[in-house]
Amino acid sequence: MSIRLGVVGAGIASRELHLPALMELKDLFTITAVNSRTRKKAEEFADLVGGKIKVFDSYEEILYSDDVDAIVLAVPIALNPEMIVAARTAEKPVICEKPIAASVKEGLSLLNLPGNSPVYIAENYRHIEVYTKASEFVREGRIGKPIIFSWLKWVDFGLDNKYVQTKWRQAPKHVGGFISDGGVHDIAALRKILGNVREVSGFSEKNLDYLGAENSVVFNMALGDGVIGNYSVVYGAPASLNRLEIVGTEGLLRVDKDEATIEIEAHGREKFYANNSDGFVEEFTDFYRVIKGQKNSLGSIREAILDLATVEAGLISANEKRVVIVDSLIVES
Amino acid sequence: MSIRLGVVGAGIASRELHLPALMELKDLFTITAVNSRTRKKAEEFADLVGGKIKVFDSYEEILYSDDVDAIVLAVPIALNPEMIVAARTAEKPVICEKPIAASVKEGLSLLNLPGNSPVYIAENYRHIEVYTKASEFVREGRIGKPIIFSWLKWVDFGLDNKYVQTKWRQAPKHVGGFISDGGVHDIAALRKILGNVREVSGFSEKNLDYLGAENSVVFNMALGDGVIGNYSVVYGAPASLNRLEIVGTEGLLRVDKDEATIEIEAHGREKFYANNSDGFVEEFTDFYRVIKGQKNSLGSIREAILDLATVEAGLISANEKRVVIVDSLIVES
Repeated sequence: MSIRLGVVGAGIASRELHLPALMELKDLFTITAVNSRTRKKAEEFADLVGGKIKVFDSYEEILYSDDVDAIVLAVPIALNPEMIVAARTAEKPVICEKPIAASVKEGLSLLNLPGNSPVYIAENYRHIEVYTKASEFVREGRIGKPIIFSWLKWVDFGLDNKYVQTKWRQAPKHVGGFISDGGVHDIAALRKILGNVREVSGFSEKNLDYLGAENSVVFNMALGDGVIGNYSVVYGAPASLNRLEIVGTEGLLRVDKDEATIEIEAHGREKFYANNSDGFVEEFTDFYRVIKGQKNSLGSIREAILDLATVEAGLISANEKRVVIVDSLIVES
Repeated sequence: MSIRLGVVGAGIASRELHLPALMELKDLFTITAVNSRTRKKAEEFADLVGGKIKVFDSYEEILYSDDVDAIVLAVPIALNPEMIVAARTAEKPVICEKPIAASVKEGLSLLNLPGNSPVYIAENYRHIEVYTKASEFVREGRIGKPIIFSWLKWVDFGLDNKYVQTKWRQAPKHVGGFISDGGVHDIAALRKILGNVREVSGFSEKNLDYLGAENSVVFNMALGDGVIGNYSVVYGAPASLNRLEIVGTEGLLRVDKDEATIEIEAHGREKFYANNSDGFVEEFTDFYRVIKGQKNSLGSIREAILDLATVEAGLISANEKRVVIVDSLIVES
C-alpha cells in the first residue's frame, strides 16, 4: 500500500523537483494533502498534482490528519528544525529539504529528538550517479591514493533566476545564503568521494547585493591522510561550471556535474557517462525504504549536519580569519 | 658593441634556458667567461658555447676579470644574495635567476645594496606572451571586473626529472622547495594579470619524500577590491596542467600555460594563440636595455621579493595555521 504524503511548502522544490519524482513513484507514494504559506499557492499545487488532495491552512492540521502517513517539508531553511520536531512529536515520518537548518547550532538540536519516527534529510547529491560512481572509482584505487582536489563551481544566477527571486533567499536567515544552500550539496558529494573534511580555511566576498549574502568563496580543506584541496564558488557568474578534479598518485579523475561525466586519466584514458538523474527518484525511494524499517544512512541528521558544518566552518574562517576545525562546531549541548 | 658576459653556474638553467636565448642575441651579448662549482662542469659549458671562453676557478676572478662586463648568476637559490652583493661591490651589472633568495628575510637585505650597477632578477614569466596578453585583456575590461580566480597546477616531476635530480633541490635551503622555486613564476604572472596579493591562507602536505619539501599546497589569496582566488599546486603528479581561470562580472578568461592559449568567453567566445616563447630572449633583451640605462621595471628586486613573499606567506600560513598578510613579511630592517 502506498504511503500517503502531506506536502508542506508548495514552492520551487515541491513543484519542480519533488513532484516529477513522485509522479514516477506512484506505487510508493500518493500525495493526499498540501499546506503552504498561502492557501492560493497550496491550491495551485493541488491542481498541479490532480486528484483528490486536501488543502490545509496550517502545518499542525496536516501533521495530525488521518489522511497523511508521512510529511514532505520544503520550506524556508530556517523553519526546518521546528517543523522536524513537530513531525517527530506527531510521530509522522518526515523527509525535509536541505540544508538541515539555518546554522549548525540550530541543526544540533535535532540530535536529541523526542519519539522514533524517521527523519530523512533530502540530500539528492548522495543519490546522483556521477558522484556515486566517482566515489566507487576512488575507493577502487583507480587513481591510486588521492593527494589533492580542486572543486570549481560557477553559478550563473542573475537577478531573474527563480531561486534568486525567492523572498526568503533575498534576506537569508541561513548562514552564507546560496553558499550554504548550494554548498551542502557539493560537500555531501565530496565527503562521499573523499571522506570527511577535518579543517577549513577560507576567504569570502560579497560582490553582488541581489544574492543576499557572500557570493564568492574560496575554501581550503584538509581531509586527513595527506589529502588537501580547494572548493571555490562564485554565484552570479556570467557562465556555469561544476567541476571536481582529483589528483592521485596514479592518475586523475575529473567529474563534471553538468555533463554527468567522469574522466579518468591513469594508465590510459577513459570516460564514464552517468545517467543525468537529479537523484530525487532515488532519494524518495530511499525514504520509502527507511519508513519501512531500513537503516537511514543517506538521509541521516548526522550526515546533514556534517555537510552544513563543513560549509559553515569555511564561512566562519573567512569572517574570523582563522582555520576552523569542522568537529569543533559539532558540540552537542 | 656587445656586452661580454661571465656566466656563473653551468647547471640546467645556463645550459638549457639561457644559452639558447643568448645564441639568438649575439648582437647584444657574448659569453666570454664561465665559472662553476667544478672546473669540469665549467669546461663542458665552455665547449658547448664554443669560441674563446675563459674558465675561472672562482666567482671573484670572474667578477673582476677585464674580459667580463656583466654577470649571469644561475646558482643554487640560497647563494643568490651574497653573489648579488659581490657583483654590486665589483660594480658589474648582474642578471640573477629566481627566486631572489632562500627566504624573504634574506631577499630583503638586497633592498639596501652598495653601489649602483644594475641588478636584474630573471623572472621569465614577466616576459611570456600568454601572460602579457592575459594581463592586457583583463585591463581592457574584456571580462568586466574580475571576481574570483583559480590557478591549478599539476607538475609531473618523477624521480628521474632533471630538476629533481639536482642535489641542492633534494635538500633545499630555500623555503618550500619546488613550491617556491616554481611558485614565484606563477605569482609573477598572477600579479601581472590581477595585481598584488594582500593576504594568503594555505594548507600544505608532503606526500613524496624525493621532492625535498612540501609538494602539495592550496593557497587562498585575497587581492583587494573584492577579488579572491586560489592557487593549488601538486608536484609529483601523474599528469601535467597549468591553468588559470578568472571569472569576471562580464565573462571568463582561461589561460593554459602549456598550450600558450587564452580563451575568453564573454559576449561570445574567442581563443588567442600566444607564441610559445619561454621569455628568455625577451628577458635578456630587457636586461641589455637596463644595462644601457633603461628603468628596471620587470626585473627589479622589489618585484622579485613580492613574488617570493606571496609564496612564503602561503607556506607560513600552512605551517602556523593563520592568515598571513604578504606585506607583513616585507619589513625592511
